[in-house]
Amino acid sequence: MPVWAAELAKKSVDLIVATDPGWVAQILDHFDAFLQDHANCERKASALAMSMVVKYPDRTQIVPRLIALAREELEHFEQVYRIMESRGLPLLKDAPDPYVNQLLQHCRHGRDDRFLDRLLISSLVECRGAERFKLIFGALEEPELKGFYRDLAGSEAKHGHQFAEMALEYFDQGTVYGRLAELAEAESNIVAGLEWRPSLH
Amino acid sequence: MPVWAAELAKKSVDLIVATDPGWVAQILDHFDAFLQDHANCERKASALAMSMVVKYPDRTQIVPRLIALAREELEHFEQVYRIMESRGLPLLKDAPDPYVNQLLQHCRHGRDDRFLDRLLISSLVECRGAERFKLIFGALEEPELKGFYRDLAGSEAKHGHQFAEMALEYFDQGTVYGRLAELAEAESNIVAGLEWRPSLH
Repeated sequence: MPVWAAELAKKSVDLIVATDPGWVAQILDHFDAFLQDHANCERKASALAMSMVVKYPDRTQIVPRLIALAREELEHFEQVYRIMESRGLPLLKDAPDPYVNQLLQHCRHGRDDRFLDRLLISSLVECRGAERFKLIFGALEEPELKGFYRDLAGSEAKHGHQFAEMALEYFDQGTVYGRLAELAEAESNIVAGLEWRPSLH
Repeated sequence: MPVWAAELAKKSVDLIVATDPGWVAQILDHFDAFLQDHANCERKASALAMSMVVKYPDRTQIVPRLIALAREELEHFEQVYRIMESRGLPLLKDAPDPYVNQLLQHCRHGRDDRFLDRLLISSLVECRGAERFKLIFGALEEPELKGFYRDLAGSEAKHGHQFAEMALEYFDQGTVYGRLAELAEAESNIVAGLEWRPSLH
């Protein structure tokens, strides 16, 4: 893992509520099912970044970053799928993700508001991913898998920061951090209300 | 370019009708518009490969190849976008692709028939891309851009073969090459009927 990723992975992310440490135990108990969900999350994260490229082609300051991010998430998908393959696990049919869907309900209308909200929601989703991958990294024992989740935690934390930085290209600090605080509050309520499943969210 | 790509790029592809050599002149005359179309073609080729992963997760013999292909097409998209950026060109809103849409109308129904047809149509689309990139490579003079289209021709020719190979994992040679001949016939009629635009198809 590059130095920046290691540094970022150590940082605490800007989430209001920490995941219950007990969460990771049930993930380890159903790790195959977790992997199947995780693969779909990576695939959808890539598709979501590309959907922003398609939706906002005029936001040329961030298009290259969104493309790079989409490529990285697709690489993660491939990596998770390789692990699944080695365990004989097929991809699962896509199921709705109540966490992401509830978050997206907080997107305001209006071109600029919606653009800002999509960036900040993506930032929070990546930060939550980073937080949970770090828990998984801490709980795993098998060195290769452990290393994979350590690297992923670093990468997702980096993406969390990148989405906030992209917002700062188009909106002032007060607007970005004010809205981020509101959405982080919403995110913490959503997380608290989710049923535990063998899934990332 | 790796040796295999150079070799494949030299091979003639299995298309019935060659593109009119005059086609490339109007592409060079409207090269900016061509780049904008080309970028969208790469993006959609990546999305199409991923849509097959989602649609056919049980076809585990080819899922890894589809993922690798989707990654490669997304990398091409990024490369084309970089060239566009250096020319100050934004991405264009997606327009329907009459060539691909007419080809897809030849997809039969029924799970296996449809699966085979999607693979073989993808093979033909990649082969046509390879043929046209080779024409562009031959016509361009600027060394960097010329090299880019030479590499792309090799890569798309490789993909054309890969899609046919994927079909051979699930269907016998007679079925694959019989249907490929029918679809190649349809493809040649579609190409002959297309209006020339500053686009790949």
